[in-house]
Amino acid sequence: MAKAPVLTPQADDFPRWYQDLINKAELADNGPVRGTMVIRPYGYGIWERMQQSMDARIKDAGAQNAYFPLLIPQSYLTKEAEHVEGFAPELAVVTHGGGKELEEPVVIRPTSETIINEYFSKWVQSYRDLPLLINQWANVVRWELRPRLFLRTSEFLWQEGHTAHATYEDARDFAALIHRRVYADFMENVLAMDVVLGRKTPKERFAGAINTLTLEGMMGDGKALQMGTSHELGQNFAKAFNTQYLSKDGHQEHVWQTSWGSTTRMVGAMVMMHGDDNGLRVPPRLAPVQAVVLAIKGDEAVAKVREIGDLLAAAGIRVQVDDRVDTPFGRRAVDWELKGVPVRIEVGPRDLENGTAMLARRVPGGKEPVRLEGLADLLPKILEEDQETLLRQSRERRESRTAEVTTVAEAAEVAAGGGWARIPWADLGPAGEAALAEQAASVRCLVAEDGSVPDADDAPGTVAIVARAY
Amino acid sequence: MAKAPVLTPQADDFPRWYQDLINKAELADNGPVRGTMVIRPYGYGIWERMQQSMDARIKDAGAQNAYFPLLIPQSYLTKEAEHVEGFAPELAVVTHGGGKELEEPVVIRPTSETIINEYFSKWVQSYRDLPLLINQWANVVRWELRPRLFLRTSEFLWQEGHTAHATYEDARDFAALIHRRVYADFMENVLAMDVVLGRKTPKERFAGAINTLTLEGMMGDGKALQMGTSHELGQNFAKAFNTQYLSKDGHQEHVWQTSWGSTTRMVGAMVMMHGDDNGLRVPPRLAPVQAVVLAIKGDEAVAKVREIGDLLAAAGIRVQVDDRVDTPFGRRAVDWELKGVPVRIEVGPRDLENGTAMLARRVPGGKEPVRLEGLADLLPKILEEDQETLLRQSRERRESRTAEVTTVAEAAEVAAGGGWARIPWADLGPAGEAALAEQAASVRCLVAEDGSVPDADDAPGTVAIVARAY
Repeated sequence: MAKAPVLTPQADDFPRWYQDLINKAELADNGPVRGTMVIRPYGYGIWERMQQSMDARIKDAGAQNAYFPLLIPQSYLTKEAEHVEGFAPELAVVTHGGGKELEEPVVIRPTSETIINEYFSKWVQSYRDLPLLINQWANVVRWELRPRLFLRTSEFLWQEGHTAHATYEDARDFAALIHRRVYADFMENVLAMDVVLGRKTPKERFAGAINTLTLEGMMGDGKALQMGTSHELGQNFAKAFNTQYLSKDGHQEHVWQTSWGSTTRMVGAMVMMHGDDNGLRVPPRLAPVQAVVLAIKGDEAVAKVREIGDLLAAAGIRVQVDDRVDTPFGRRAVDWELKGVPVRIEVGPRDLENGTAMLARRVPGGKEPVRLEGLADLLPKILEEDQETLLRQSRERRESRTAEVTTVAEAAEVAAGGGWARIPWADLGPAGEAALAEQAASVRCLVAEDGSVPDADDAPGTVAIVARAY
Repeated sequence: MAKAPVLTPQADDFPRWYQDLINKAELADNGPVRGTMVIRPYGYGIWERMQQSMDARIKDAGAQNAYFPLLIPQSYLTKEAEHVEGFAPELAVVTHGGGKELEEPVVIRPTSETIINEYFSKWVQSYRDLPLLINQWANVVRWELRPRLFLRTSEFLWQEGHTAHATYEDARDFAALIHRRVYADFMENVLAMDVVLGRKTPKERFAGAINTLTLEGMMGDGKALQMGTSHELGQNFAKAFNTQYLSKDGHQEHVWQTSWGSTTRMVGAMVMMHGDDNGLRVPPRLAPVQAVVLAIKGDEAVAKVREIGDLLAAAGIRVQVDDRVDTPFGRRAVDWELKGVPVRIEVGPRDLENGTAMLARRVPGGKEPVRLEGLADLLPKILEEDQETLLRQSRERRESRTAEVTTVAEAAEVAAGGGWARIPWADLGPAGEAALAEQAASVRCLVAEDGSVPDADDAPGTVAIVARAY
């Protein structure tokens, strides 16, 4: 008799597989208020590792962290016309504070362009104050009607960068720097995720931006997920908030701005990109636990796994010891498999005699005996190998499931079948884009023929990537 | 003619000095919504350093980070009677979300005991699940009628720990561990702050706790500031939320709990504890910038300070290079003094000839020439010396301004004069405590005669520390 699967198989019902996995790997629970989320320690540990890697890259790009208030006067939102139109339907509104009705309602930030510009307009006086490069790690609220843990939640955690520059070119280049050197570098090298870098169509742009750069990843079911965005805001917010500087030659000029964000959604992306029917597969460079050392049973095994744990920790490996021998070994092994820890080292009575352990690898799968003395040298090598395998598999999936097409009908068909379609933007255009929407597909981004990011919406040779999306 | 002071002198008006300094050192600005705060990069850099040090200590104590939602159903707050009474007057209430009036209003968390217990009651099943040790870094909102930057703000940032244990003793010991090994250790060894560890009187306890442990610091004006608290919650929330576990011998038991928090208020404490009429004095172990290397003027000085900056950074010193030679040197020096950077290294044309620099130290004050070659060895030594000096000064102030008294009138007089009074709790009691409140003083905490923390409110020999407080 076959064992009942731990998770709904991906092929049966991908969304249910996702929900099962988030729950059983103890990543998150639904919150009591619709669309909110409790991030459990294992899920938060993954997010913390993402934060650390991203934060270092953001600081290398020259930005400094700061913190702006959660609560924004409602009137701020209305100062930039497109912005308020984009966010008004999603706002959470505070009407009472300290036991009284407020004179002016305040909103919980859905994003912070408006309140940050209020302060930029005070802080920026002269060209000497530019560029001003600010980032914040914060929570935001956007009321969500169809919530899904990590992917669409009414409250989510993110970083949002906000910068002001003296010139259009400087702002454009900084938005591109964040796009490639911060986001793409992090996603490829830490998350082991293949991402396509492109430009959003005017329809898909951020509310208030003149250009939105995006990174799109293909999930396990062939759908696309927007992984992060970097916006050129032009002078839209600068004009709405009168953010001006005195130029070198003595003129008052509006600043040019960018904003850019990435969120806890990346945790969901990691799940859907690398997970399989046995659970998560966490990329080793990201993993809060890279190796778990399990005692199968017996006091001697417990003593040995603690010794191995100390040894591996001293070698710089993020290791956890599992000596809970009063819980059946099989259940614990399945649990670590679910949690996607890259390497399991299992020690039982027979291993103690032989000076060996069983080494189980999550990414390639399989188990084999290893000698204990070589473990601290072996592990860094296999962790790097697994990191590369995950990135390669992710890239191969996207390449094998991407088709070149020339008509809207073909593009919609490819998308419906769980693939991505590449179609010349000249053949599609805004009309084709509108037609796709009726078939639940969208233009994820525009790319140049050589794979680079187009300079303009109408750059010659631009190709649209069409897919269904989360 | 004497120069106008950069700041209002402390002796003239301490609160105004504080306000001036927060502003001129660019730590924070007032937010647009009453009582909210914009934490500027320099202030946030200090908070980030606090977070890192605290987070490491919290993890060493065995807690794991997680994240619970910002928004809490209003009904949760009412489940624990004292808790709702304590927090109801400070709540911010969201009545509209996604363009519609909500069926049940939700509140922005003022603290998370209620929502966390809702989940603990799901996650905790057996004694094997205990202790459950959770921490979160988050923002909270408590509507503030008399806001002051960092000290009392409607929104503040903090960590809040929440734990569940099988026994009263285990919870009690964990609350004490956080109090001493996390909070006191951090405050003394990183913030260089003398703190008195004590127990709150029943009147001053956290709403819903059976015991509140506190750390009280004496500010530059002799007032007290509560620096952090660790609460024993008993079974109050466990009963309200039915958080039970199956014991080893097969009984359903309510868990015993703790919660503990420390906030961005610590930034304000650091300012008021160590600052002087020239600005901040940031303890070297905390300082985001331990040393600034300033070029006075000229291209050669600019090249030299960059070289020194690289050298010091390689030696592990957190260094910043100031090569803005188009801004007058005097203004930059005053600015770094305001910001309280422990060490300034100033390089001018004459220094270049001599292979020297001027070394200005913020804590002892004064300037002297140093040879460049020894700098990387010298700096760690003087930074440690300055760290110790700040802690010693902080301790000496508290000791010299503390008086032993025996009557309520004397205690109130000492407090009004900017000092702390020690009075036997047996001589004061709840009646004396009420009388003090009429004279703007309060019992900051109860301590044992030997300086330890009393086990009970009525432990023999208990001494009350009386002061005015922020």
